[in-house]
Amino acid sequence: MNAKYAVGVDFGTESGRAVLVDVSDGREVATAVYQYQNGVIAETLPLAGKPVRLEPDWALQDPEDYVRTLQVTVREVLGKATVDPLDVVGLGIDFTACTMLPTLADGTPLCLVPEFRSEPHAWVKLWKHHAAQPEADRINAAARERGEPWLPRYGGKISSEWFFAKTHQILDEAPAVYAAAGRLIEAADWVVWQLTGEETRNTCTAGYKAMWSKREGFPPDSFFAALDPRLEHVIDERLSRTPQPIGDRAGLLTARAAAWTGLRPGTPVAVANVDAHVSVPAVGVTTPGTLVAIMGTSICDMVLGTQERSVEGMCGVVEDGILPGLFGYEAGQSGVGDIFAWFVENGVPASYEDASRRQGVDLHTLLESEAAKLRPGETGLLALDWWNGNRSVLVDVDLTGLLIGATLATRPPDIYRALIESTAFGMRVIVDAFERGGVAVNEIVACGGLPDRNRLLMQIYADVTGRRIQVSASSQTPALGSAMFGAVAAGAAAGGYDTIAEAAARMAHLREETYVPDPGRQAIYAGLYEEYVGLHDYFGRGGNDVMKRLKARARDAHLGAAKGRAPAPGL
Amino acid sequence: MNAKYAVGVDFGTESGRAVLVDVSDGREVATAVYQYQNGVIAETLPLAGKPVRLEPDWALQDPEDYVRTLQVTVREVLGKATVDPLDVVGLGIDFTACTMLPTLADGTPLCLVPEFRSEPHAWVKLWKHHAAQPEADRINAAARERGEPWLPRYGGKISSEWFFAKTHQILDEAPAVYAAAGRLIEAADWVVWQLTGEETRNTCTAGYKAMWSKREGFPPDSFFAALDPRLEHVIDERLSRTPQPIGDRAGLLTARAAAWTGLRPGTPVAVANVDAHVSVPAVGVTTPGTLVAIMGTSICDMVLGTQERSVEGMCGVVEDGILPGLFGYEAGQSGVGDIFAWFVENGVPASYEDASRRQGVDLHTLLESEAAKLRPGETGLLALDWWNGNRSVLVDVDLTGLLIGATLATRPPDIYRALIESTAFGMRVIVDAFERGGVAVNEIVACGGLPDRNRLLMQIYADVTGRRIQVSASSQTPALGSAMFGAVAAGAAAGGYDTIAEAAARMAHLREETYVPDPGRQAIYAGLYEEYVGLHDYFGRGGNDVMKRLKARARDAHLGAAKGRAPAPGL
Repeated sequence: MNAKYAVGVDFGTESGRAVLVDVSDGREVATAVYQYQNGVIAETLPLAGKPVRLEPDWALQDPEDYVRTLQVTVREVLGKATVDPLDVVGLGIDFTACTMLPTLADGTPLCLVPEFRSEPHAWVKLWKHHAAQPEADRINAAARERGEPWLPRYGGKISSEWFFAKTHQILDEAPAVYAAAGRLIEAADWVVWQLTGEETRNTCTAGYKAMWSKREGFPPDSFFAALDPRLEHVIDERLSRTPQPIGDRAGLLTARAAAWTGLRPGTPVAVANVDAHVSVPAVGVTTPGTLVAIMGTSICDMVLGTQERSVEGMCGVVEDGILPGLFGYEAGQSGVGDIFAWFVENGVPASYEDASRRQGVDLHTLLESEAAKLRPGETGLLALDWWNGNRSVLVDVDLTGLLIGATLATRPPDIYRALIESTAFGMRVIVDAFERGGVAVNEIVACGGLPDRNRLLMQIYADVTGRRIQVSASSQTPALGSAMFGAVAAGAAAGGYDTIAEAAARMAHLREETYVPDPGRQAIYAGLYEEYVGLHDYFGRGGNDVMKRLKARARDAHLGAAKGRAPAPGL
Repeated sequence: MNAKYAVGVDFGTESGRAVLVDVSDGREVATAVYQYQNGVIAETLPLAGKPVRLEPDWALQDPEDYVRTLQVTVREVLGKATVDPLDVVGLGIDFTACTMLPTLADGTPLCLVPEFRSEPHAWVKLWKHHAAQPEADRINAAARERGEPWLPRYGGKISSEWFFAKTHQILDEAPAVYAAAGRLIEAADWVVWQLTGEETRNTCTAGYKAMWSKREGFPPDSFFAALDPRLEHVIDERLSRTPQPIGDRAGLLTARAAAWTGLRPGTPVAVANVDAHVSVPAVGVTTPGTLVAIMGTSICDMVLGTQERSVEGMCGVVEDGILPGLFGYEAGQSGVGDIFAWFVENGVPASYEDASRRQGVDLHTLLESEAAKLRPGETGLLALDWWNGNRSVLVDVDLTGLLIGATLATRPPDIYRALIESTAFGMRVIVDAFERGGVAVNEIVACGGLPDRNRLLMQIYADVTGRRIQVSASSQTPALGSAMFGAVAAGAAAGGYDTIAEAAARMAHLREETYVPDPGRQAIYAGLYEEYVGLHDYFGRGGNDVMKRLKARARDAHLGAAKGRAPAPGL
């Protein structure tokens, strides 16, 4: 019998990638990447003629980029691996979220309908579209006022990135788009619809981004009516009350999608998933007790549990949200790799760039090797890792970065190390919150770009959290996870697996190398963590709201300048 | 009648400079600089043979560099100006302080005596010799325990830089040097001794650095005995109980010194002075109400008063310490220009260096011009300017720098501006402390290197303090001041002046340009200053001693590393 394969496609922020995986052992046989033609649309719509400019904080995408990703990458992995499409048992996809779009009732994106082509609200709103904060504020206020029981499941606050904030913004600012939108749908589900010809919704995005729960469903119509009478029936009119659990089969590949991809018509397609969540089984985690950290520009933390618990500042807890039959907890840090990138770009003098060139390494590597020579505490520095706000546990985008302990002897590697340590302390705050809430975190498995490149960082995270950390063997963890769900969509009888746990047991792999906490360093970091928590609580829990006030002043200065009201600059 | 001239010699940290000044109007006719051959001695003594290494925090000088300064620079200004030595009516000098040395009874520096040549304690201890902290701690503890009445005159704490800390260290570590030291003397007074052949002491260094006061004299012998029985008679045996007031004539130039300098034997020589203090009349300030800020790597603040007041955290108040007949108040900021230099050296990426090269300006200038485009508050940043500790009003070397408000959008000019603003807030804390203590500060006159170069900084200081700021017209303010005291040593009958006020009225000049507070910016800075004070008090007055604890941890990590006890680095 021929070997069997599954395909996973991971739709990211700037590109999409496919991976062809051997179902028997998870070996990644071929990968292919498609850089989105229109990438992140933040300035003007990608149209000929008079430019349509976007407001600040907007971030859109072009749904045709998703179709092109399917057309380019799946054919490419099949070709590279010279695999017979008949041996591909299933297909799964994962996406950024909440990334959503308005479509006609038949799934046609509104932005492809000529009359709406130059209307920004007709396009895909990317996860990092941040212009719906007023709507998010209204949703939170209404939920608090009505004592909505779902609010605690989201740490007490929903984000402007989520589904109904974006939906509400469309209604507020472009009622004609809202009226024409037969469906409002996650891009993840839209892609599965394009593959199978059937509209499905998944429990992951429904739960984490659209306030749905398995036991209670969506918030009541009266809640939506309280936001705006026109929203009262949004669920029945434009969504679906019956999302399918993660791990289900969404449908079979249509002839049209088979022609796009080169796969066999009728290939089973999994229910759509989210990049972070699909990574959990992809690193072999299918039971409670292990925190999966997807570490890149930011960090997503995923933990499984058998019960619904209240965890301070979590992003959400969703039954069937990560794996069927379990509660999936999500938390996260809004700035990690991007803080280090900010520092390398803005805070490291030419002498270090020269040295990195001479040594033939990049600046990150040079700084890491210098920072690795330092002992815990030796820098005398401590930072609060809030350059991009704080997601968990404070859930506050108006918090900002802090560095304390600088002297005339402070050098760039000292700061680099302090920034790494601050993000490690940030992770320990999350781990502590989980444990306080009754969700065990006995060890950590990491995946994403950071663990690949930064061994010092991983060791510091182990020393600071006091947890053993293992790292995914795959550098395409989400795509691998999607392929695993593709194999489950096929089922064991068709050469796949019947459960995701079985798939994970065979297809997921960790590296040999394990980061083990060093007791001496752990003790020192315990003391520094106390200092971190002291500053964290003082600046983050109302002891001194100076960060918010400084941010408001900066906003006033900008706005005043734009309106000619602010005092002139210093000279 | 020929024009009359005076010579001022300013002995700095790295070099000495002479200026020849027209007595009638203060015009600087010629200047000359001598770079000390042995500069700051911090590593090994400048001797042939086996190197004599110094401990950390040591900083010595070679007294022969002072004599060479006189030999080189005074001849040079006379030659450049083609002035007849007979037309030079007087000579004054100023010095860093406390810069002190042990000598034989005849004034011979002990380090020039062969048997002590390789003994570090026999050399000049420069002001920034910081190795006498244990002795300073002992002096402070004893003074507090005994309720010494002089302690409040120094803001409640004396510094390790001062005279008796350094004296005590000599006794502790090199009792043979102490025993051989017939005299312990400020280098300022030692130079005047070399010029006049007579030992004199000045009220400025006696008051600010050696706990002397006009009304109470030195601390009692019993205080010194409490420190160490061998110190009981240190004043009578090695110092002098009758320092001469600033503005007096110390003596007349000896034939030997005339031969060194090319001046006429018998030229009147002024009592020695200190660089910061001599600057006050040199910028035309001879009455209360104006703060004179000597602005460079650090800032010295000088204010005159008619009464002795208690001002929080001042460095000292000395009757006749700056001008005869008035109380001279000193305060200061331990890091200003050196913080900006630290940032430019350690925190600005290559792209800015490239731009500064393209524009043909230095990095400071580039950053200033970028920072000048920003409005008050626009950066969203706030800093505590404690990179080098805090001199006034907290008097705490263990405080460290803090930056708050950083985001991924923060750019180097934002930080540069925030650092400038933080030092301006630091100055306002001092101004407020003076005013609270009943010492009026109605306006500010600045001199030193910073006001010359940095117009943005000066405007921010005006906006933050709410005071008009004028700037000295001289770029050699201390040397000019010394020349003025030289003219007063001569007296009006000999072509000089009878009082320093008269000399200042004729010889001191300010630039036309005045920095005037802008009401709009002042209002915004008042709000930011409140935030600064909030952080200042929280971190500086015991709300959270995290800075000290981090510094102690850093010290432990260093020491532990040296002894092989600290945990290994992260990798």
